[in-house]
Amino acid sequence: MNLILLNSNDHWIDAQRVRLSDRRAEHIRKVLRSQQGDTLRLGMLGGQLGTGRIEAIDAQAVLITVQLVDPPPARHRFDLVLALPRPKMLRRILRAVAEFGVGSLHLVQTARVDKSYWQSPLLADAKVDEALRMGLERSRDTIIPQVHRHRLFRPFIEDRLPAICQGRPCWIAHQDADVGLSAVAGQPAVVMIGPEGGFVPFELTLAEQMGAQKVHLGGRILSVDTAVATVLAQTL
Amino acid sequence: MNLILLNSNDHWIDAQRVRLSDRRAEHIRKVLRSQQGDTLRLGMLGGQLGTGRIEAIDAQAVLITVQLVDPPPARHRFDLVLALPRPKMLRRILRAVAEFGVGSLHLVQTARVDKSYWQSPLLADAKVDEALRMGLERSRDTIIPQVHRHRLFRPFIEDRLPAICQGRPCWIAHQDADVGLSAVAGQPAVVMIGPEGGFVPFELTLAEQMGAQKVHLGGRILSVDTAVATVLAQTL
Repeated sequence: MNLILLNSNDHWIDAQRVRLSDRRAEHIRKVLRSQQGDTLRLGMLGGQLGTGRIEAIDAQAVLITVQLVDPPPARHRFDLVLALPRPKMLRRILRAVAEFGVGSLHLVQTARVDKSYWQSPLLADAKVDEALRMGLERSRDTIIPQVHRHRLFRPFIEDRLPAICQGRPCWIAHQDADVGLSAVAGQPAVVMIGPEGGFVPFELTLAEQMGAQKVHLGGRILSVDTAVATVLAQTL
Repeated sequence: MNLILLNSNDHWIDAQRVRLSDRRAEHIRKVLRSQQGDTLRLGMLGGQLGTGRIEAIDAQAVLITVQLVDPPPARHRFDLVLALPRPKMLRRILRAVAEFGVGSLHLVQTARVDKSYWQSPLLADAKVDEALRMGLERSRDTIIPQVHRHRLFRPFIEDRLPAICQGRPCWIAHQDADVGLSAVAGQPAVVMIGPEGGFVPFELTLAEQMGAQKVHLGGRILSVDTAVATVLAQTL
């Protein structure tokens, strides 16, 4: 936790003072080992970054005076369309997506996605939110990625993808592409990443008909979590 | 499993025929749903890639005639020096390192590495090997990364790092660097990645004295697993 993330539902004493008594208070006490008078890095969820001065601290709570002055870091150049991953992987993919400051993540059904994944408790709003916040806390960001769920591939591609791209190129990761994503990563784009086993030919063709263009990620088959980080790492 | 990985300890009937009865046989039966006469992608651990023809298959075993003709893919341009990660993360980091075809991975103790991590059962040779093989099976590679363990930071940096680099530049990932790794990723190198919380100043200084140069990974603080993939993704 490199940033204490505050939100408007916290226990605000007044406009500048907040009282924390949850895992953040525990982190301040046990990991940071902060004391009265110490300064912390803070951010307001959806808002600015800044610092906080510890006014009081005990075993129950931490009282902090907050000063928020800096804008959050820039959004990532890429938005992602991702075949819904195995629940076990989802959590750390969400964390990575937040670490990189992605604006929007679209989770979609594809032929090789097991439909039972949509029933996973890890896909509940609260769990998604928790995983994303872990990423924000890691990378000192305050803007939570927007996560959209699309349970039907075809209507998503035909009806939604053009509006999502808004004139940006749409790249679809595919091992056999002639061009590498690294060669075209200079401009904002939407990048599509398939499931384990990849997109089926019908899905690839449909996406290409709607304007998506194939790019490779170096020619090796990568796990989905590795592929997500590889895509997002291209804009360094 | 995009590749059935064979090794010399397998049950070889003769130079070209092998009998599998473990999880690989189960994968061939249940996931690939292969039948007699079907062709599989195979590789020999440490050796060539090729195909196999299923001669016989039943609930106990699969008998395969093997033809190995293709060289394994090229090694990654980077070797890695990595502060020993939390055991929970180690497994998937090893998998990713194998997926990318890294030649050598050096796991090192640093000030911010909990020494108890070295006692983790996940660091046993057999477990490391298993995680690496999962990566090879994913990315269709046969060359297992060499994993070296260094329990003392200073002797490692002073006595071993120069020989490991062998004239290659040594980059050390650090948020405050002026140069991004992406700008220098064109040539073979050794890349050092710190633990959660980073290298301490003494470690940075020592590494720099021994020739390491700071590079950033985009300016955001990343989790160790994300940082590893980000580093390896720079050579696409």
